[in-house]
Amino acid sequence: MDFRFVMNMTIKMMDTMMTMPGMDMMAMNEMIEACAACEQACTMCADGAMMSSDMGKCVSMCMNCADMCNTMMRAMLRPAGYDMTAMMAMMQACVAMCTACADECKMHAGMGEQYDMCAEACMLCAMACQKMMDSMKSMMSA
Amino acid sequence: MDFRFVMNMTIKMMDTMMTMPGMDMMAMNEMIEACAACEQACTMCADGAMMSSDMGKCVSMCMNCADMCNTMMRAMLRPAGYDMTAMMAMMQACVAMCTACADECKMHAGMGEQYDMCAEACMLCAMACQKMMDSMKSMMSA
Amino acid sequence: MDFRFVMNMTIKMMDTMMTMPGMDMMAMNEMIEACAACEQACTMCADGAMMSSDMGKCVSMCMNCADMCNTMMRAMLRPAGYDMTAMMAMMQACVAMCTACADECKMHAGMGEQYDMCAEACMLCAMACQKMMDSMKSMMSA
Amino acid sequence: MDFRFVMNMTIKMMDTMMTMPGMDMMAMNEMIEACAACEQACTMCADGAMMSSDMGKCVSMCMNCADMCNTMMRAMLRPAGYDMTAMMAMMQACVAMCTACADECKMHAGMGEQYDMCAEACMLCAMACQKMMDSMKSMMSA
Repeated sequence: MDFRFVMNMTIKMMDTMMTMPGMDMMAMNEMIEACAACEQACTMCADGAMMSSDMGKCVSMCMNCADMCNTMMRAMLRPAGYDMTAMMAMMQACVAMCTACADECKMHAGMGEQYDMCAEACMLCAMACQKMMDSMKSMMSA
Repeated sequence: MDFRFVMNMTIKMMDTMMTMPGMDMMAMNEMIEACAACEQACTMCADGAMMSSDMGKCVSMCMNCADMCNTMMRAMLRPAGYDMTAMMAMMQACVAMCTACADECKMHAGMGEQYDMCAEACMLCAMACQKMMDSMKSMMSA
Repeated sequence: MDFRFVMNMTIKMMDTMMTMPGMDMMAMNEMIEACAACEQACTMCADGAMMSSDMGKCVSMCMNCADMCNTMMRAMLRPAGYDMTAMMAMMQACVAMCTACADECKMHAGMGEQYDMCAEACMLCAMACQKMMDSMKSMMSA
Repeated sequence: MDFRFVMNMTIKMMDTMMTMPGMDMMAMNEMIEACAACEQACTMCADGAMMSSDMGKCVSMCMNCADMCNTMMRAMLRPAGYDMTAMMAMMQACVAMCTACADECKMHAGMGEQYDMCAEACMLCAMACQKMMDSMKSMMSA
């Protein structure tokens, strides 16, 4: 399977669906991608394989972040269910959760490359959600 | 199995764990319960069994609400990972999503008792999250 | 909120939906309840609050078990999507995952009451799924 | 963000973790990728945007398939929690669910390109899981 399969399929499939007119499809796709990446990174980071006794907070925050990113990604993939107030509040929650998780992971940066990678995935996801929110806000005020 | 098993187990197990000192455990348990109820109601309400052609928005919003409630419930069950800013933003998102979903379900109230029941589960969940937020805010300002 | 709210709502709501004729609704409700209980117990058991350095396997298996139970519970709550081959395979997977997780949790029984409680929730869930499978098999051969 | 980011990160991060010696990492990565793609395709396919009144079964099966694929993907991303009996049963369940969902989606192929794309994602995921199972079986008998 071609590694670009997921991304291409998601873009093509979203094109066949009715989303909001004027929506920034590039920002949307980057956000979905960033949520998927962050869920995977956080799930791996929380895996017991790399665990030491003082990692309890990191593990639990990573699991929260994986769940929030999956919930956000799915909501974004359901255009029929868009409610702007709820979507905005969920993106705000995703930004807050990713930022908190990135801060926690960065504290363990010296203990293994995986913490840096997870922190990076979290920050990219927070940025992608913020960009999507800005785009939606300017759409609504237009 | 005793139907009270879930609730009793959750309370007992949470008692063995370290949560935040001063936390309103009753409000917390009610919120976890309300999230679980809301996830189940929304999952059933979105099931194709009761679907007609104009139910698209209700189905998708119910799926979003089920996901958000599950994410919220899990976060609440992980005291080691509590980050107040992130938890507050997630509860705010849960309130917004449950309120939007309740409003949508109420619009189909005449079409079957299940829409009323799902709307009620959503409203109870929004209220339980709001109560938990109020309790946390007063804790933090104390 | 009444603690019996979830269970009563789930039963009432399922009554309004079309499930398979002849289905053992009591076994079904007990299984849904057991899955919800197991997801909550496993999520708490995997929380970093109770973690020591040799708990890596237990944490990861509990997270797997929580995810599998949530997936199973949701599938059971969606009668429109029942496909017997897929449902049987998923219940088999849920039994296998719950049994493996119970075995792992039991190994830490001396370290805190929560491991016993999580192991119990896992075993009850495995039994409830097995009972549901037996009931479905006898239905199909009738 | 580079569209290859997810895949590259997942591979790199998995490299830093201890998995089973002798494990086919290429088959594993393709399976994780296929599960992620299938979850996204099924979530979109179940979205109310493309719904007509006789799509109830397709919607509910797609939601089941999205949940099963997400559960499978997460389990694969947690090497510390690998239990071979449970993993095999879960892969079997994922194959059964993806196959059933692909069959259902193919029945609506004439109604829109998205059903074909979802069916394809389901079949690719079933194949990737089967390949992983074969690889694990030959490892265990070696």
